[in-house]
Amino acid sequence: MAEFAYDLRDLKFILNEWLDMEEIFGLERFKDTYEMDDVDFILNEVYKIAKEVVSPINKQGDEIGIKFEDGKVTLPPGYVDVFKFLQENGWGSANESLGSEMLMPLTLYRAYNEMLMAACPALTSYIKLTTGASNLIHRFGTDKDREIFIENMLNGKWSGTMCLTEPNAGSDVGDSTTRAYPTDDPRIYKIKGTKMFITGGEVDLSDNIIHMVLARPEGGAPGSKGLGLYIVPKIWVNEDGSLGEPNDVTCIGIEHKMGLKASATAMLSFGENEGCRGILVGNPADEKGFSKGLAMMFHMMNESRIGTGHNALAQMAEAYCLSAQYATERIQGRLFTDPKAGRVELIKHEDIKRMLLEIKAQTEAIRAMIFKGFYYLDVAEHSGDKEKATRYQGLAEILTPLIKAYASETAWQMIGQAIQVYGGVGYTEEYPVSQYARDVKILSIWEGTSFIHAMDLVGRKMRMKDGVPFANWMSDRREFIDRNKDAEGFGKEMQQLENAYQCVAEIKDLYASYYANKDEKGELIPLYAPRVLTCCAQLFAGEAIMDQAMIAKKKIAELGTDHHDYAYYTGKLATAKFFINNILPNVKMQAELIKNADVSAIECPEESLIIS
Amino acid sequence: MAEFAYDLRDLKFILNEWLDMEEIFGLERFKDTYEMDDVDFILNEVYKIAKEVVSPINKQGDEIGIKFEDGKVTLPPGYVDVFKFLQENGWGSANESLGSEMLMPLTLYRAYNEMLMAACPALTSYIKLTTGASNLIHRFGTDKDREIFIENMLNGKWSGTMCLTEPNAGSDVGDSTTRAYPTDDPRIYKIKGTKMFITGGEVDLSDNIIHMVLARPEGGAPGSKGLGLYIVPKIWVNEDGSLGEPNDVTCIGIEHKMGLKASATAMLSFGENEGCRGILVGNPADEKGFSKGLAMMFHMMNESRIGTGHNALAQMAEAYCLSAQYATERIQGRLFTDPKAGRVELIKHEDIKRMLLEIKAQTEAIRAMIFKGFYYLDVAEHSGDKEKATRYQGLAEILTPLIKAYASETAWQMIGQAIQVYGGVGYTEEYPVSQYARDVKILSIWEGTSFIHAMDLVGRKMRMKDGVPFANWMSDRREFIDRNKDAEGFGKEMQQLENAYQCVAEIKDLYASYYANKDEKGELIPLYAPRVLTCCAQLFAGEAIMDQAMIAKKKIAELGTDHHDYAYYTGKLATAKFFINNILPNVKMQAELIKNADVSAIECPEESLIIS
Repeated sequence: MAEFAYDLRDLKFILNEWLDMEEIFGLERFKDTYEMDDVDFILNEVYKIAKEVVSPINKQGDEIGIKFEDGKVTLPPGYVDVFKFLQENGWGSANESLGSEMLMPLTLYRAYNEMLMAACPALTSYIKLTTGASNLIHRFGTDKDREIFIENMLNGKWSGTMCLTEPNAGSDVGDSTTRAYPTDDPRIYKIKGTKMFITGGEVDLSDNIIHMVLARPEGGAPGSKGLGLYIVPKIWVNEDGSLGEPNDVTCIGIEHKMGLKASATAMLSFGENEGCRGILVGNPADEKGFSKGLAMMFHMMNESRIGTGHNALAQMAEAYCLSAQYATERIQGRLFTDPKAGRVELIKHEDIKRMLLEIKAQTEAIRAMIFKGFYYLDVAEHSGDKEKATRYQGLAEILTPLIKAYASETAWQMIGQAIQVYGGVGYTEEYPVSQYARDVKILSIWEGTSFIHAMDLVGRKMRMKDGVPFANWMSDRREFIDRNKDAEGFGKEMQQLENAYQCVAEIKDLYASYYANKDEKGELIPLYAPRVLTCCAQLFAGEAIMDQAMIAKKKIAELGTDHHDYAYYTGKLATAKFFINNILPNVKMQAELIKNADVSAIECPEESLIIS
Repeated sequence: MAEFAYDLRDLKFILNEWLDMEEIFGLERFKDTYEMDDVDFILNEVYKIAKEVVSPINKQGDEIGIKFEDGKVTLPPGYVDVFKFLQENGWGSANESLGSEMLMPLTLYRAYNEMLMAACPALTSYIKLTTGASNLIHRFGTDKDREIFIENMLNGKWSGTMCLTEPNAGSDVGDSTTRAYPTDDPRIYKIKGTKMFITGGEVDLSDNIIHMVLARPEGGAPGSKGLGLYIVPKIWVNEDGSLGEPNDVTCIGIEHKMGLKASATAMLSFGENEGCRGILVGNPADEKGFSKGLAMMFHMMNESRIGTGHNALAQMAEAYCLSAQYATERIQGRLFTDPKAGRVELIKHEDIKRMLLEIKAQTEAIRAMIFKGFYYLDVAEHSGDKEKATRYQGLAEILTPLIKAYASETAWQMIGQAIQVYGGVGYTEEYPVSQYARDVKILSIWEGTSFIHAMDLVGRKMRMKDGVPFANWMSDRREFIDRNKDAEGFGKEMQQLENAYQCVAEIKDLYASYYANKDEKGELIPLYAPRVLTCCAQLFAGEAIMDQAMIAKKKIAELGTDHHDYAYYTGKLATAKFFINNILPNVKMQAELIKNADVSAIECPEESLIIS
């Protein structure tokens, strides 16, 4: 059986050698709780946990899946124990919860969490959603809400969910029909409606499930602005924090999915028997019928969308580790350049190296992009320097759609390639990569499809606040290129980055012209938005991996070829060169397609697309 | 539940309006058996069979899978019946078997067979392998072999397999260790060894299984040239054709696969009890220990490799039909360009149309490429004009790797995109596309991995016979462009084709220089071979779909907008324009990468790739 392995070294590089973690640990919120010395300890510790505690349940979770009977979900063996282990021992929600004393910088939390996601993505989703729900209560709930809910959500006693999607409202959440009816108590509403695709919506992890539910109060405005947010416990929680009566939340079905089979995706009915109560979060609807439910949910969105991209990255990274490992063990074929030397390990073949380095390059470049995102969010959330915080908030918001969509789309392709590295056995469930392919596919859909993120980029992020954040983002790219354009040994690569930068600059202007002339050019905006997103993501990721390569180059010069880190740094150089020379040129092609503006997809009549 | 649908119209277009089927039906072998009038009848008939008989077993086959107990495989419900239905009624092997009176041109057989593959790829593999085995016996067996084996393989009584792969010999089949020991009868050998990944290796389809086994006779040369080919029935077949004793062939395991769960992939042990006999096919090893076993198997390879690409195409095409259908039914979101018009069907959104048209464009362009391949093979096999036959044989051999690798790699991406069209429900097994994603992945691996085909292209097909066939292939492309460069309404597209042609011409010269200077440039040959294959495939497919679009344009002018075929032809135009403007430009980028010749993947030390 393949053993869990992970690129611990790259995570340490990011925190110890690349990002300015001194700055993060020096922030008021963290300066008394965490320090640089904790990094290696925490990462080493979690690596062991990921390998020894979490990873062993992953395959059996896939094979056995969840059971659904009489409205109850039973998780596969080990899931409840591992969930409790992580939550109780402070390796879960407590480190990511804003109100918690154990709160870590996202950069640090996410570095160790990446290994847990890689070890068992179905499990970590439960933790992630519990954190998300508790953070919503922390930010927008009353003191009382915080008092009776949060502690038990952080210590493994209760889990949490986010309830947005409905059978007839997926990407268009504003079309929700779940209702909230007032009661005598102004903070308590009767909830009635059906939600679907609720991860952990029903599960035997814990004593209670705290659902955060979007619903439209009576008289609420139509669309997303009319939605309120409600805390809807599966079992009512009394004022003193004790459990009361069941709250009329029924699981009416569980999805049978292609992957993530240990993750219970529930269809929930609220108030089937008129007995479901929810606690209003924030203010009631205003006189226009507007509520801030979705806006509150979206407050968590940057982090959780980056988190979704990060989940995809973690799975791709693990598929990489496993396939590289297999390629060193499996002997097959002879070298093209030296067939007489006899049979060799797969990894000696040029094409296997090319496939592996491509997965590695995408993995490390995307990881670099993601951790830049977390770094921006840490500063934005906790810095005392308000100007800097605002600037970084803007940068994080721009990165969010890039990370979410690019990482999840790329992961599907790259895990497919990891199967290819294995050959025939990669297609069997005896080996672990096919499970990652199946598990990862949902990530380009949930938390907003790739297209939604592409529109978020071109429609909102590029244009918000008069374009200032995007201009900042562009000027950071410009500054990097100007600063490094003569960097020794990277002449060709810096030129590629410059080319990609110019392309993105052109695309940005082109899109501004589309918005200025929306009547004529409006259709081009959504038609080419996914390509724009790819260009921005590859430019940023390319720069980030180049930035890392420059550090690696210095280290190699300092440490020499005998140092135990030589292989790592040499790999980083190759990774950056591969990304810049083989992946980044795509930006130029995409830019040409965008400029060419072929509209065959728009002109093609619907009838011509349908085969009946 | 989604209903099977298929683009019958495009298949009819290919046979009735595009390929010169008059020529094919006029060939000596077919002129008394099939004619143009049969095309629509056969396609209509099989469409009904695919929909009503074959498609209903596909999902349950996936859900239930095969059962393996006490060395026996039990297929899911319906598989045996449908196998027999197709074989007995002449919709299976009989139409593809060289010795059969019912032999159809591949162009015709494959057109209807595409729908059956789309309806249930796990089932059609059994038929395909039975045909392959019976054709080997027809071509290379004795009269006696033909007499006692073939009839029962064509009428559904027996099935067949091809046994190449072994636990330690996959892509490098020449390293096989299965042995053949002489007996007193010079045509009978004792077979001993283990074969794996044998589709249908053990299955309850029929009374007997005829295995075509590669094995090395005692004293045989090492490598692939030492391998002989043997007919190894599961149950011995007596001289009079009756069944004898079991032949010591044991199924020792079945793979648990990501998909194709109703296809039994067996590990077979031959001669565990020294009781396995095989009938030699062809001559015994010569004095150097050389046998022609692999060469005989490879005789079937062009057809079966194109067939594998065709299988991928069929699955992608079905995923397209289903996702397009869903997109017309599902109402979600508002138009970007007209949000006030209310909620609309998915298919009205620009990005959904773009995704659909991309799948459609890849599907139809690849289908066009594949049917050109079958057309070449029909002429090559059956034409009385030997010069033409030779030329077409060369063209088919060039297309073979392009089709096999490009179709299977593209299908994985495009079926992933079909899931994206569905959104969240596409990830559930309630809807059919996720099964296609799982089923299709093996096709880029079996019958030779994509890399093997890339090397077949650059190492063999581009260079065979002093480069004459490839020069013919290039001159056909040149001729098409010259003939159509001023085609009205296609100016931009013809320019794109010209650009792609120039790129391929440059790549060809570059590769010639690598071979001429193999000591220094040798490593670049395998490193960039997959990109070369992609360029050639996209050039050919792009030309083929353009050729079809020009017919469509004429038809539109003739028939007008009210004709019931207007939507089809308009779709064909859009499809071609999309392919040429959005997919074909990739050739230019790939050519630049090839010329740039980055060698980071070669220079990267193995230690830098391994994460332990």
